[in-house]
Amino acid sequence: MSSPLKQIMYPSSIALWGASSSPMKMGTIQLVNLLESGFPGRVFPIHPEEEEILGLKVYRSVQEVGEPVDLAMLVLPTRVVPEALDDCGRAGVRRAIIVSGGFKELAEEEGAEREKGILEIAGRHGIRLIGPNCLGVLNSAVPFSTTTIPEPPMGGGIALASQSGAYTAMIYPVLRRLGASIHQTISVGNEADLDLVDCLEYFAEEESVTAVGLYIETVRRPREFISAARALARRKPVVAVYVGGNEAGSRSSLSHTGAVAGEDPLYDGLLSQAGVLRAGDMDEMLDWLWVLSTQPPMEGDRVAVISNSGGPGTSLAYHLERAGLKVPLFSRGLQERLRGLSNPLAFTGNPIDLTFDTNIFVFRDLLQALLESEEVDGAVIYGIFGSDWFVNLRKRFTDLEGLVGQLREAYPHFLRNLAETARGKPLLVMSFLGLDSDAIAALTSLQVPVLAGARRCASALRALRDYAALRKRLSEEAG
Amino acid sequence: MSSPLKQIMYPSSIALWGASSSPMKMGTIQLVNLLESGFPGRVFPIHPEEEEILGLKVYRSVQEVGEPVDLAMLVLPTRVVPEALDDCGRAGVRRAIIVSGGFKELAEEEGAEREKGILEIAGRHGIRLIGPNCLGVLNSAVPFSTTTIPEPPMGGGIALASQSGAYTAMIYPVLRRLGASIHQTISVGNEADLDLVDCLEYFAEEESVTAVGLYIETVRRPREFISAARALARRKPVVAVYVGGNEAGSRSSLSHTGAVAGEDPLYDGLLSQAGVLRAGDMDEMLDWLWVLSTQPPMEGDRVAVISNSGGPGTSLAYHLERAGLKVPLFSRGLQERLRGLSNPLAFTGNPIDLTFDTNIFVFRDLLQALLESEEVDGAVIYGIFGSDWFVNLRKRFTDLEGLVGQLREAYPHFLRNLAETARGKPLLVMSFLGLDSDAIAALTSLQVPVLAGARRCASALRALRDYAALRKRLSEEAG
Repeated sequence: MSSPLKQIMYPSSIALWGASSSPMKMGTIQLVNLLESGFPGRVFPIHPEEEEILGLKVYRSVQEVGEPVDLAMLVLPTRVVPEALDDCGRAGVRRAIIVSGGFKELAEEEGAEREKGILEIAGRHGIRLIGPNCLGVLNSAVPFSTTTIPEPPMGGGIALASQSGAYTAMIYPVLRRLGASIHQTISVGNEADLDLVDCLEYFAEEESVTAVGLYIETVRRPREFISAARALARRKPVVAVYVGGNEAGSRSSLSHTGAVAGEDPLYDGLLSQAGVLRAGDMDEMLDWLWVLSTQPPMEGDRVAVISNSGGPGTSLAYHLERAGLKVPLFSRGLQERLRGLSNPLAFTGNPIDLTFDTNIFVFRDLLQALLESEEVDGAVIYGIFGSDWFVNLRKRFTDLEGLVGQLREAYPHFLRNLAETARGKPLLVMSFLGLDSDAIAALTSLQVPVLAGARRCASALRALRDYAALRKRLSEEAG
Repeated sequence: MSSPLKQIMYPSSIALWGASSSPMKMGTIQLVNLLESGFPGRVFPIHPEEEEILGLKVYRSVQEVGEPVDLAMLVLPTRVVPEALDDCGRAGVRRAIIVSGGFKELAEEEGAEREKGILEIAGRHGIRLIGPNCLGVLNSAVPFSTTTIPEPPMGGGIALASQSGAYTAMIYPVLRRLGASIHQTISVGNEADLDLVDCLEYFAEEESVTAVGLYIETVRRPREFISAARALARRKPVVAVYVGGNEAGSRSSLSHTGAVAGEDPLYDGLLSQAGVLRAGDMDEMLDWLWVLSTQPPMEGDRVAVISNSGGPGTSLAYHLERAGLKVPLFSRGLQERLRGLSNPLAFTGNPIDLTFDTNIFVFRDLLQALLESEEVDGAVIYGIFGSDWFVNLRKRFTDLEGLVGQLREAYPHFLRNLAETARGKPLLVMSFLGLDSDAIAALTSLQVPVLAGARRCASALRALRDYAALRKRLSEEAG
């Protein structure tokens, strides 16, 4: 049976209320972003007075459209939402996104009553809906995006369902800086109808989704949540951020989505039972999702650290162990092999410290030896730099262009080799460099995550380890 | 009495061993970076065969220079270091940076012996030195940098002393992404002579240093460390990252700087006694240093959260409370004043949730009301965006240029106003946007730190609170 979200996430036609010729209205902004996101289907703006908006013919009502409408998107003042929804029903529209606020999230009885009202209308017409009080959805497979933030980095396998609309959209620049991208997002808002549980069931059906993130302030159907999350987690990693479980958090959550948040330990238990990995905050969740969507689960806890620098190597060893992973001293035989591959000053115990070494190709050889040894389950490398590193040298040595050119040509080959060497076991790169470094840009496009800190690398590898253990447990429990 | 580091950090002339006409040698790289860093003094390359390096006259020995040399910088193979150092002494050079490795950091007796040897030579000539096995220093007040990484973002008040050379230099891109900068760094290496304690004493003398960071794998003189750090912390915040206190960390640290690391709880105690704030890792330390060097200490624990979006507001409230700070519900009178300043759908309790609001000027008015109320000790704002947000709208509305132009003109004024409104109490901005957003770039240049996550903001405000409490305690204990 197909999820009711399928039609919302893959619409062929959208009717949109609330856009006008005024550019600073939320409805207009969302229409502009919808068009700019490359939506290939039909878009029908509905407005009582306008004739044309952004070159699109405007309809007085949805009945006037005269073509099938897969999805209604309402960005209207609160008081006119019921009427517009009723119009949708009478015109045969069966899916809606209600962006408008002014419902249960208000700390007054009237808001909750209004929400009941629209649910009743939806029920009468068989309309399934997201919201109210949400930002809508994004699906890079269509492609389309209804949110207020421009230029989502579409792609990859990460899907996100969120009780915060902002977090489904404000993460674009974070993902862009990481070199990651976003595949699907659902801003569930007040969850009057479709909720996080529906999202979990929907994401289970979506083959292209490879890792699922949740931003949670409350779980409204705990029993169903556990069951849907466990079913999903057997096949794909599910990560959640939960906030709200203290006084100020709970007060804020109440005014945000009309939900009373439960306490932290309660949610720790619920998420653990549901097979959901709990991240400390959005930053950590995005790191984990990126790593979980690109790297295989880590089937053991032994990590190799390869570094060309003592501080980062020591930091990685320290944080990996603090995260509950192992950085085992390599066997004598393996160390001998590693010594044969590296310079005479290198320390080959684990972490491997190459000290200053301008031969970047050594990383691949060491990685291969390590992974062939069966002594490690995953690896982190520190010390890969790109041709940007030569910026000063090139100013002073005019004859360096040849060497830099050769390196530029060799990098992609070397980095592809490196990424391929790791296949089957997780590989992370730690680097403080950003995507303005050609090596880092190449690594991220090869699906090798690059994280700017030892603790972040350790935390992400721990998530890969936890997911491997969890998947095993869930599949055993399922028989 | 002036610190022996003063002459190393403010040299008028530097003799450098190890540069040649080969661009891929460490000595050459460091010479290039020294020249490109804008060093205004004299540089004398010493080399047995070369005639000219990078346009500089080369000397066969330091004796040949015939001018006073403030600082010797040795980037030589291990075995020739003693002879060069002895030459320095005989030529009257009294300060040195020994970059070369191959000493105590090697896990063999000979390394330690060699280190004793150079100490003996230094002692005979009255030479004070940094290293061996280090990257040297950076001082934006000169300006100059001796490290291997190009283009340090020089400026600000952050000083760093580090037992990892890499961390004094690899942080440049991290600081650049934050919009922060670095004032002074000292890579102490094996600390054969000058060590972290000397750095603490030196930073105490430097008026332009406003926050001090330490990367520690071991403290060699605990008693002196405590005393120097306490004296410094009475006047400026001191933050440390300690790694090494577990099995793998300790093994790695031994091979890195020849130091046996102590256990975590031991260092927790030592740092606490020393008045040093312990950060979880380098990322967190850089956040804290940026915030501590630009914001006043927070004299109470009550934080106001202003947001235009529920998720980030709830997350901030949650993480601030988890960090041990308070997000108190505002008094009825204050809420009334806040309601008069914001839109009718806004929640004014704390966090303030403005919901969707395109009037950015409201942030300043709310902040002013909050800080005048005496109900808060610091504030975090979420929801400031720049003209980049209009990228899609501008494609579809040709008549929008006027409005965007007006906003672009108004932003700097508004943001300066905002920064000035906060004077006396700490203000942070949470945003996922980067410096490619004009608003974020303007905020950071106004010394308002922008952090991309609720937990990071909470952690940094907690550091500001901790430092205020610590400074009070230290000054009471000092009488």
